[in-house]
Amino acid sequence: MSERLVVIGADATGMSAASQARRMAGPRELEIVVFERGGFTSYSACGIPYWVGGLVAERDALIARTADEHRARDIDLRLHTEVLEIDVAERRVRVRDLGPDAESWVGYDKLVIATGARPVRPALPGIDAAGVHGVQTLDDGQALIDTLTITEGKRAVVVGAGYIGVEMAEALIHRGYQVTVLDRGAEPMSTLDPDMGALVRTAMCGLGIEIVGAAEVTAIRTDEAGRVRAVATAEGDYPADVVVLGIGVRPETTLARAAGLPLGEHGGLLTDLSMRVRGHEDIWAGGDCVEVLDLVSGRNRHIPLGTHANKHGQIIGTGVGGGYATFPGVVGTAVSKVCDLEVARTGLREKDARAAGLQYVSVTVESTSRAGYYPDAAPMTVKMLAERRTGRLLGVQIVGREGAGKRVDIAAVALTARMTVEEMTALDLGYAPPFSPVWDPVLVAARKAAAEVRRRG
Amino acid sequence: MSERLVVIGADATGMSAASQARRMAGPRELEIVVFERGGFTSYSACGIPYWVGGLVAERDALIARTADEHRARDIDLRLHTEVLEIDVAERRVRVRDLGPDAESWVGYDKLVIATGARPVRPALPGIDAAGVHGVQTLDDGQALIDTLTITEGKRAVVVGAGYIGVEMAEALIHRGYQVTVLDRGAEPMSTLDPDMGALVRTAMCGLGIEIVGAAEVTAIRTDEAGRVRAVATAEGDYPADVVVLGIGVRPETTLARAAGLPLGEHGGLLTDLSMRVRGHEDIWAGGDCVEVLDLVSGRNRHIPLGTHANKHGQIIGTGVGGGYATFPGVVGTAVSKVCDLEVARTGLREKDARAAGLQYVSVTVESTSRAGYYPDAAPMTVKMLAERRTGRLLGVQIVGREGAGKRVDIAAVALTARMTVEEMTALDLGYAPPFSPVWDPVLVAARKAAAEVRRRG
Repeated sequence: MSERLVVIGADATGMSAASQARRMAGPRELEIVVFERGGFTSYSACGIPYWVGGLVAERDALIARTADEHRARDIDLRLHTEVLEIDVAERRVRVRDLGPDAESWVGYDKLVIATGARPVRPALPGIDAAGVHGVQTLDDGQALIDTLTITEGKRAVVVGAGYIGVEMAEALIHRGYQVTVLDRGAEPMSTLDPDMGALVRTAMCGLGIEIVGAAEVTAIRTDEAGRVRAVATAEGDYPADVVVLGIGVRPETTLARAAGLPLGEHGGLLTDLSMRVRGHEDIWAGGDCVEVLDLVSGRNRHIPLGTHANKHGQIIGTGVGGGYATFPGVVGTAVSKVCDLEVARTGLREKDARAAGLQYVSVTVESTSRAGYYPDAAPMTVKMLAERRTGRLLGVQIVGREGAGKRVDIAAVALTARMTVEEMTALDLGYAPPFSPVWDPVLVAARKAAAEVRRRG
Repeated sequence: MSERLVVIGADATGMSAASQARRMAGPRELEIVVFERGGFTSYSACGIPYWVGGLVAERDALIARTADEHRARDIDLRLHTEVLEIDVAERRVRVRDLGPDAESWVGYDKLVIATGARPVRPALPGIDAAGVHGVQTLDDGQALIDTLTITEGKRAVVVGAGYIGVEMAEALIHRGYQVTVLDRGAEPMSTLDPDMGALVRTAMCGLGIEIVGAAEVTAIRTDEAGRVRAVATAEGDYPADVVVLGIGVRPETTLARAAGLPLGEHGGLLTDLSMRVRGHEDIWAGGDCVEVLDLVSGRNRHIPLGTHANKHGQIIGTGVGGGYATFPGVVGTAVSKVCDLEVARTGLREKDARAAGLQYVSVTVESTSRAGYYPDAAPMTVKMLAERRTGRLLGVQIVGREGAGKRVDIAAVALTARMTVEEMTALDLGYAPPFSPVWDPVLVAARKAAAEVRRRG
């Protein structure tokens, strides 16, 4: 007797789950139906800035697997079909096929919610003007590229200096724009502590990107034709021929909320370790619409990131298919690149540690990416937080050039293993002059942090 | 009442120990005397290939701290002074000042043995011919550069295809030489399994370096003037205007052996976790002259590597100065670069695992250094070994291009934390398209290894 799996959303989590479920159960055992509001499947939203910037030539390069490829694996994929309601009691979803605009109920035995996130779009005057763009979906990316193609002016304003904001700033620099980034915070990259964010600001300014901190956007000014002309802040107007919004995203849980499913403090779905929605044996959720456990602070977070979304999909598909897999949580690793600047973080910032009730020591060291005498040895700043008393590593932030970013993985693994900074001083990391000074910058930071833990007690 | 610390050897371990001891104890508490046979202190032997290759312009760039800088910190540094004997019972060393050629006994309260390693130099006919060079010391490097400067022919033969051999091959390519590397093993880089070594061979051949495996060198052929002319093997002669020996090194423990200090199966000094020579409260040893505990196999190894030598020095200096620090052991991480090829390893090879009595699964995956659609995404091969039953990570080997090598650090930390490959599949590693595919290559390998552990049981 065949069961039916319904999946809402056909991007990373949804299609990874569907594909993994299909690997584990053939079409006679499990029917798989996926509903997707948009027109694309399994694409890399993280790649959009590089497509806009021209580093990636074609949209289709961002699509890992097309709808037809999924269908060839016996997945009944319905694009342009929106789920309007989840009826948990009756195990069914109400869907609208956006083509014929026809509604119907579709029953499920198992349900996967992979509705992703929606961009924050502040209710500002002019926010819907022509020339104001989000960059959340491939459609968004295409619309922005179309605008860039027809726009004659070369002044761009990016609102928000988080990952997407700085990546879009680089993309627009690549396209020859004069770029201003407006951000609420005093320093860009609020995922870093302000002292590390200041390094990013300095470096970005060196790249010709103007960064305006503590900027509260009050309106988008338009011309008579309804096209964007400037971004208004309390301090003044910033002329703009194109505006990109990179203010962040929230879990897209409208359906889940209406269905009475459990949501957390960040608005994301709450799941158990196997990514089942809490209290619901037959409903799974993952990706940008769920909250995840931060293993360092013990608190929930909302971290929209493709790498988690893919892991969730894999785990959900395994569970749906009758197997066993869990997602233990995250340590909050993220890495980003603006031109040749690499920015990375994992674990807790100072304010996260304080909010978690942790007392900590904080050290910052300057080092280089290679042996000092080796060509192209580039400066690198590493900040490290460790808990007082225990010396447990709490977090690492790195700002540098080539070779800096992925070093954060050392700390990500150490956080997962709950290592102390004293233990980290003995780590046997790869050393050769083209790769590292004889003391890797992370080891230098660990030594200094360990000494500070001893000193502070 | 002042004590006297005597240090034998003024490179990484010796001078790190002396410097750290001085930080912890002032000149009134502790007199520090260092004897060094050669003429340099604290230099990066690992940097010699890059100096020879011209990437590092000057010898002095490789010297982290000069003799005078050490002396300015109240360290009595005596260059060109050889220690001839350690008298453990009387707590004294017999030294010869090579200048006036004068011998004397110098007493010690505490002794640090940092005698390093000596290169293997097979007793072949012609081995001492002009044009045959080792690259162990700065003096060796200078002698080689002098030879390269006066030699007209452009044919170089490197004997040995380990780290030093391949790095010297690159150096000689940079200097316009036609390079042949002769190695005993079937594949280069015997620190890797042969299947991974084969990838290195293919890549090096692509760089124009000729690699001859299974080559047993029988003699160095010379001309009438006593200059090298060719390297003879059982299979034939390889013409050579210059020969570089990179066959490996052995612990330099002649003094220690004569003094009756405990040596291990690899000929290195045996220490406790605080780097004290076993059974001797007042003698420490570290760096290339000691054996270290391999945390993965539980066996001793000899790993001559600057990064360990520096750690040892730091720990010894702390102990000498009355503090507490330990060196828990290594996991066997190493990384190397040949032109744009990056080669890395950590943990056990297949033969190490077998020798340790471990049964294992082995998987190899192909991935890329960046998202597939991102410019310059380069192929990367990751091999991973995990223990049967427990699934504990045993080792990782990586061969690839830019961005491949330092990924081995992920595995180095995971080995230290005794993680299973199943646990590794959930690691929260840095992801962004310029840095990694959405599944980092190490995660892809971990997933495959975990599946194989489950399958094999």
